[in-house]
Amino acid sequence: MLNFTVGPVMSNPDIIEIANHSTPYFRTPEFSEIMLENESMILEMLHAPAGSRCVFLTSSGTGAMESMVMNILNDKDKIIVINGGSFGHRFVELCELHKREHTQVKCEFGHQIKRRQLDGLEDYTAMLVNMHETSSGVLYDMNMISEFCRKNNIQLFVDAISAFLADELDMEGLRAAAVITGSQKALAVQPGIAVMALAPEALKRIEENKEVCMYLSLKQALKNGERGQTPFTPAVTTLLQIHKRLKEILSQGGVFEERRMIASTAENFRSSIKDLPFEFVAESPSNAVTALHPINVRATEIVKILKNEYGIWACPNGGDKADEIFRIGHIGYITKEDNNKLIDALHNMNRRGLL
Amino acid sequence: MLNFTVGPVMSNPDIIEIANHSTPYFRTPEFSEIMLENESMILEMLHAPAGSRCVFLTSSGTGAMESMVMNILNDKDKIIVINGGSFGHRFVELCELHKREHTQVKCEFGHQIKRRQLDGLEDYTAMLVNMHETSSGVLYDMNMISEFCRKNNIQLFVDAISAFLADELDMEGLRAAAVITGSQKALAVQPGIAVMALAPEALKRIEENKEVCMYLSLKQALKNGERGQTPFTPAVTTLLQIHKRLKEILSQGGVFEERRMIASTAENFRSSIKDLPFEFVAESPSNAVTALHPINVRATEIVKILKNEYGIWACPNGGDKADEIFRIGHIGYITKEDNNKLIDALHNMNRRGLL
Repeated sequence: MLNFTVGPVMSNPDIIEIANHSTPYFRTPEFSEIMLENESMILEMLHAPAGSRCVFLTSSGTGAMESMVMNILNDKDKIIVINGGSFGHRFVELCELHKREHTQVKCEFGHQIKRRQLDGLEDYTAMLVNMHETSSGVLYDMNMISEFCRKNNIQLFVDAISAFLADELDMEGLRAAAVITGSQKALAVQPGIAVMALAPEALKRIEENKEVCMYLSLKQALKNGERGQTPFTPAVTTLLQIHKRLKEILSQGGVFEERRMIASTAENFRSSIKDLPFEFVAESPSNAVTALHPINVRATEIVKILKNEYGIWACPNGGDKADEIFRIGHIGYITKEDNNKLIDALHNMNRRGLL
Repeated sequence: MLNFTVGPVMSNPDIIEIANHSTPYFRTPEFSEIMLENESMILEMLHAPAGSRCVFLTSSGTGAMESMVMNILNDKDKIIVINGGSFGHRFVELCELHKREHTQVKCEFGHQIKRRQLDGLEDYTAMLVNMHETSSGVLYDMNMISEFCRKNNIQLFVDAISAFLADELDMEGLRAAAVITGSQKALAVQPGIAVMALAPEALKRIEENKEVCMYLSLKQALKNGERGQTPFTPAVTTLLQIHKRLKEILSQGGVFEERRMIASTAENFRSSIKDLPFEFVAESPSNAVTALHPINVRATEIVKILKNEYGIWACPNGGDKADEIFRIGHIGYITKEDNNKLIDALHNMNRRGLL
């Protein structure tokens, strides 16, 4: 099967090979060294400010989103949540669950946020944003958001789970207090690890806040991370894969080159299906994914035919969007030939009258 | 390296091979089918009562322990915590963090619990016990504990993280409301997944309790599990490995045969090192692990020499026990030859005057 979902995605055979062994014991200086290198490579790739730290949680991205809401924010915060799809909605639910005072800035599905939507929110203390709202494919205008936050002394918390490596992301440039990503997106290894980079402002907040949850504790993750360890048994194999993958990225032109490749895969796909009966959902798409609305047929039907007749996984949308929208991911180990197979499959479906 | 720690442990090459591929997309009927089979195989192996369910969390065992304390217990409970080592202590910390009324029954490190230690606790509502306290190697007298709980209408919650498959465990027989295990113990696959089996009493409690944490929510895990899915992206590869491993166990004599093999590995090791200058730490050891106190030298030194000179990982103890005690695990893919290599290495060290 060719996998064009937005995660888990296809991995480079070199990286997969790491998992083709028994998981090594990890309370060792060798593993600590690897973890310390993981931390510094991630911080370098994010261009994190001096004094930043990075932790690795054995969880999905949602675990890290919740950890952020529990451990970095507190009940004195007034939080702006940008909500333009499923993942924005998840931040809202997390704020509700943890009784964090918040207001939603609702963005129409697939639409860019406008500066005027933030008017009147200048006295807030924090903002949660899914830089790339993976459900619609929209990449938010992070420069505008960052400028607003900086001007009003609002701490910016960025879910870059599917944006990391795919879209431009400069933690210091954005003055982001924390940034999240996950192992199964553009890092393109097994799912199971969420990564959180923390600028000094976030570290200070973590230190001052009281513990809410042991398993998702950032205090404990940071403390154990000082010696390259985790408080509890982590997904060791996935962390070893991350290590090899980060080294490869850095040795092959770094984040810039990685992003260029993803952008080129996305551009190649988008320009090759322009004549097909699809509407592009996102007005400012991330490089990571293209969300498509089929004009004539149900999206679920396309996903099913691609899977059963072409050996291709496309990414269905969930909930009430399932019949309207499907998505094609551009992250992971996708060769030019793979991309052409997908493009050919869609054109073939069109000729068969299936679109 | 030969790995004789208590997790992650060595895996069968057949099972490892599952991870030697890109992780497949998982929101599919095929993956749902696998997950439903995982659930029913675990329940069968635990001899769970009718109406039980099983969920799979992408976390360490501690994530599941905390989920138990958050989601199944509540602030009306009065909880007995058996505390005979690091993992008993962790349950105490979790009760403190989540403000669960509790009392500790302290067991001396390495010692069996006595019936009289439970006197006066008849009016409690729940008990948390690490069936096998992995830090000391003690296997608690579960029949005595179960009888006490049954007689006094106390709900029994069992951490069997390292006991599952290694020691006798009959969920219905014990009348346990919930049982936890983890992927990297006797299941012998990658770390990253915690498994929790829930009897009808626990399911009722989960339904009635309010949500505390989204990521570790059992309500959500149970709801999504009905269709063989998880609320958030799980460690898919590890779940696929679990599937193959459970099928293999069932086709090769089931839990009984698996336990017999682990017990035989443990017995072979224990009887072969009787003449070495070690004291056995646990008065009633689990089959999963042997904790040893070296009489003449520091435990940390033995662990170091085994690693550097013999290519063998033994399991160090943490904290203030590090110099006193080390552990040998008997779970995972350990062949007779592997076991002999370990035994020979220790005898060789003895001849070299290193013990």
